[in-house]
Amino acid sequence: MNTFGRKFRVSIFGESHGVQIGVMIDGCPAGIALSEDDLRSDISRRRAGGVGTTPRIEADEPHIVSGVYEGKTTGAPLVILCSNTNTKSGDYSNLWTHPRPSHADFTGKAKFGAHNDPRGGGHFSGRITWGMVVAGAIAKKIIAPLHISAKVDEVGGSTNIRETVEKAVAEKNSIGGIVSCRCTKVPVGLGEPFFDSIESLISHAVFAIPAVKAIEFGAGFAAAAMTGSEHNDMITNAKGETATNNAGGIVGGISNGNDIYFRVAVKPTASIALEQNTYNFEKQEIAPLVIEGRHDACIALRVPVIVEAAAAIVLADCLV
Amino acid sequence: MNTFGRKFRVSIFGESHGVQIGVMIDGCPAGIALSEDDLRSDISRRRAGGVGTTPRIEADEPHIVSGVYEGKTTGAPLVILCSNTNTKSGDYSNLWTHPRPSHADFTGKAKFGAHNDPRGGGHFSGRITWGMVVAGAIAKKIIAPLHISAKVDEVGGSTNIRETVEKAVAEKNSIGGIVSCRCTKVPVGLGEPFFDSIESLISHAVFAIPAVKAIEFGAGFAAAAMTGSEHNDMITNAKGETATNNAGGIVGGISNGNDIYFRVAVKPTASIALEQNTYNFEKQEIAPLVIEGRHDACIALRVPVIVEAAAAIVLADCLV
Amino acid sequence: MNTFGRKFRVSIFGESHGVQIGVMIDGCPAGIALSEDDLRSDISRRRAGGVGTTPRIEADEPHIVSGVYEGKTTGAPLVILCSNTNTKSGDYSNLWTHPRPSHADFTGKAKFGAHNDPRGGGHFSGRITWGMVVAGAIAKKIIAPLHISAKVDEVGGSTNIRETVEKAVAEKNSIGGIVSCRCTKVPVGLGEPFFDSIESLISHAVFAIPAVKAIEFGAGFAAAAMTGSEHNDMITNAKGETATNNAGGIVGGISNGNDIYFRVAVKPTASIALEQNTYNFEKQEIAPLVIEGRHDACIALRVPVIVEAAAAIVLADCLV
Amino acid sequence: MNTFGRKFRVSIFGESHGVQIGVMIDGCPAGIALSEDDLRSDISRRRAGGVGTTPRIEADEPHIVSGVYEGKTTGAPLVILCSNTNTKSGDYSNLWTHPRPSHADFTGKAKFGAHNDPRGGGHFSGRITWGMVVAGAIAKKIIAPLHISAKVDEVGGSTNIRETVEKAVAEKNSIGGIVSCRCTKVPVGLGEPFFDSIESLISHAVFAIPAVKAIEFGAGFAAAAMTGSEHNDMITNAKGETATNNAGGIVGGISNGNDIYFRVAVKPTASIALEQNTYNFEKQEIAPLVIEGRHDACIALRVPVIVEAAAAIVLADCLV
Repeated sequence: MNTFGRKFRVSIFGESHGVQIGVMIDGCPAGIALSEDDLRSDISRRRAGGVGTTPRIEADEPHIVSGVYEGKTTGAPLVILCSNTNTKSGDYSNLWTHPRPSHADFTGKAKFGAHNDPRGGGHFSGRITWGMVVAGAIAKKIIAPLHISAKVDEVGGSTNIRETVEKAVAEKNSIGGIVSCRCTKVPVGLGEPFFDSIESLISHAVFAIPAVKAIEFGAGFAAAAMTGSEHNDMITNAKGETATNNAGGIVGGISNGNDIYFRVAVKPTASIALEQNTYNFEKQEIAPLVIEGRHDACIALRVPVIVEAAAAIVLADCLV
Repeated sequence: MNTFGRKFRVSIFGESHGVQIGVMIDGCPAGIALSEDDLRSDISRRRAGGVGTTPRIEADEPHIVSGVYEGKTTGAPLVILCSNTNTKSGDYSNLWTHPRPSHADFTGKAKFGAHNDPRGGGHFSGRITWGMVVAGAIAKKIIAPLHISAKVDEVGGSTNIRETVEKAVAEKNSIGGIVSCRCTKVPVGLGEPFFDSIESLISHAVFAIPAVKAIEFGAGFAAAAMTGSEHNDMITNAKGETATNNAGGIVGGISNGNDIYFRVAVKPTASIALEQNTYNFEKQEIAPLVIEGRHDACIALRVPVIVEAAAAIVLADCLV
Repeated sequence: MNTFGRKFRVSIFGESHGVQIGVMIDGCPAGIALSEDDLRSDISRRRAGGVGTTPRIEADEPHIVSGVYEGKTTGAPLVILCSNTNTKSGDYSNLWTHPRPSHADFTGKAKFGAHNDPRGGGHFSGRITWGMVVAGAIAKKIIAPLHISAKVDEVGGSTNIRETVEKAVAEKNSIGGIVSCRCTKVPVGLGEPFFDSIESLISHAVFAIPAVKAIEFGAGFAAAAMTGSEHNDMITNAKGETATNNAGGIVGGISNGNDIYFRVAVKPTASIALEQNTYNFEKQEIAPLVIEGRHDACIALRVPVIVEAAAAIVLADCLV
Repeated sequence: MNTFGRKFRVSIFGESHGVQIGVMIDGCPAGIALSEDDLRSDISRRRAGGVGTTPRIEADEPHIVSGVYEGKTTGAPLVILCSNTNTKSGDYSNLWTHPRPSHADFTGKAKFGAHNDPRGGGHFSGRITWGMVVAGAIAKKIIAPLHISAKVDEVGGSTNIRETVEKAVAEKNSIGGIVSCRCTKVPVGLGEPFFDSIESLISHAVFAIPAVKAIEFGAGFAAAAMTGSEHNDMITNAKGETATNNAGGIVGGISNGNDIYFRVAVKPTASIALEQNTYNFEKQEIAPLVIEGRHDACIALRVPVIVEAAAAIVLADCLV
């Protein structure tokens, strides 16, 4: 299943080194102004290029294939594609005989067998999140004035981001990070009491982002150490605004009109230039491995716009 | 939407003070031995009774209404009901004029309006998780020998659980807690690369449990402060076993055959006996509130079997 | 899958000779006046009792278990049950060694194996349509003033219904029939261009009714022999009313504001009192069979209210 | 919703005069040999060109964008596109001021409003069925040796197809037709008892084909005039083969191992060269209309391969 949502339904497809990658959106309302230009800002934020991001830079240019007529969405399915132009498939080999630690080489083979596309991670590649970002950019138009903003709070346990990333690069290592996301001007009443709580929906979408391993809403893990009198958010006025926001804007699974706030943990990039050990299925023994190729030292740096997209897709699905 | 799952589909229904609550399961395979007796052990674990749990004790007796013939599931939908016997609706009033802090009084009214059932939380009540536990007990039969076990790791920031709970009770307060869950004998290859990653599915189900506010898989938030060389799990043999399990048994969204391990944060019970302030919609001012009724001082104590159920439902859905 | 609908979602469950049968409805809007009494009229129309219907008459009394508070729907899932009171399981035996012709004995065993509930057809029984009728009665409240009315047009090829049925009963045989359904005051614009065309949705729901084997919209099969100039419906005013209604109120999969009109063919009841031949799996030869038990000679007589329910469920799902 | 299926999930997109049309398939098993060449035969059968079909002939060339690696499906989503090369948008105008009778001009505007793409029918165009045919060609590979074959039985009420079509063309008129479809080597046990009966699923998919207005399984409408002793299909051996096939291979919603057989009625093409009347929204009166452009006189001629695709998609969804 590569589709998310009940009404605003987002499907992503493509492989890291295939011809094109893309996204299909079914259930987008008619009449929304949409051109390729509206997508470039978020696409650009996802793109690599700075310190700690991969030297592989894609053109990332979006092409709207269907669902738009005279500059407006028609209500029919939107399909938006991007050509892969900067592929170096030769970098990847022997993934099956000695799978890279904490990579999807082993699980991908277990799941899809010999037919899994191994080139650059194939369909498992983080590159496929391009489609999430495009869908997110469209979702943001639908949910306005509800606004979503995510940022990197820390990397490798430090808030000195640039320095910490440079150190990891110098050491041929990688580091994780924490991304926080805040949604403002959220209407009261989104979400459902149980299986479709806002926390359920946002976490479902956010854990689709490769490398995300944890999420907390409001006070999150800290709430576990609090008392009720500390944690309870006092309602202060008829709009339901609260003095504190330990709930992260969600009570009983439903938005309460305060900011929806959550934080996610991004693991360190699995691909590092340092030599590692792994099991070699050919030799049937543990053996050293050096990973070639171009990689992000800190994938967390590229995650904020994808987290925004995940939240925007969820909230658009609640609002259409 | 009160349904979860694609193939093993669980729907929960009922209200805290209604006639009956229950669960419907569609897609349960035929031929599974099932009687009411198989359900009582997990139901009992969810039940209140100890220190820090509500004095409201339900009989909780399950009645299988459909889907079983001569002691085996038939493949047709299972419906299992429980009568509500110990309701004191008189305890609940004025929830709309002065909504309880961090309760669903305000959001429930915003969502369902004047027709929301306010008695004991109505459909928002934690009592509705009875159905999740029943579905979980059945799911566990399907996924065996895959085994799931959850426990309370700490409450109120302390691992001295009994003492900490008693202190909260004595202070008319409540406390949160952390529940960890371990799944053993997990096959390799469950889950999907993106929107249906195992993390996506488990978090979706777990956040259906009222009071859960955070989840982390494997190293979780700690991973954000680690380097790749620290975090990567070295594969040690042909079965894919790893020397460490920072991934929590899930790589690229897919189970890697190691234990699936995750932890959830449970917030303190919102209902406390201490006086609190809230906005009084009638007087149009902030005013003191004392919550009557019977409540859990530490709802986390009752959560492990529900977390197990959430995980079991997800894994059964992957395996049927 | 025993669920139909995307937003107004209807699930039916139970077995012919089980404890209770019922229906769950998720996604019913809050605030709809609903009591058991609102359901009795349609339940009564489905009930047997006249010439050509089975002597097995159930009390059919509905019990609302959840989703209603103070006489109004709350927005939470509705569950409505009916106890089975008039079961004679002794009538049914040996269905597997010599399956009844054109009954689900053979396919049910093939699908669910040895665990299929054989009593009175088990989950395959037409009795389970009780839940569809209940859901239909609720759907009709939602879609008003849109109105749905179905009736028997002919049985056994004759419009002299009573006489034709009596003849079949006298001959220990059964007969089929044709049921037509008209929906009036339909808004323009329901349905989708392709997979969720109104024809797709209505036919999907109508073929859930046991014994229905054909459906045609508007001119239907007659359209195949017409020319375009004969078949085209001229629009006569700004509301989109047409001079003829060969389209049955649906163009491009979408309602055009004229009456939605369709006809369904109901096959003769498979159970007949006449001796028939079938394959005897024990003797491994074709052998005679006499079916005991109580049966409808013309099930088509009971189908109109179920067809109405199917259409009402579809249209409610389009309108909520 | 432009998606069909639960496991083998087919989504179609594009507009008649857009840049590209296409299909996305999620849930296709890994390891199926697939190249563009495998698709050309069915695409060719759908194509226009003979007497009674439109002079607009598209290149129709398929391009596989994702989901295939080294000539085999990978298990990741398949996307297959086709460029629109032969568009004459100038032919279409004034559809809103004077909508064509029995066309989606009026309903499309009612549904999607001013933003509907009017060029060549936009997303309502029969051209979008290209994607169904492509998905069907892939589904046929999955379900083999189960085989599906459809053909035109009659047009305009006559079995003299060529002569009848030529007459309609000469008269600037159009005619309908009947298409029959037979599925052989069907396993026993596909489908579900109620909402997902094989009849429900096939009819849902078949009514997605523009111009289809009726469907009947086995004896179909004729069954309504039969007695049970005439209609019942005697089982003749342990494989469940029956002496007759009035059930069309489906009993209790479930395949019984005999051929699945159904017939569909295709209405006459709505676009005819003869002058017609319609309501003119500008003049606010009924006024004559002459439809320009290129059209099929008998769209039924192109429908068989699309009906096969609909059935193949359903059966693949049951079998994967």
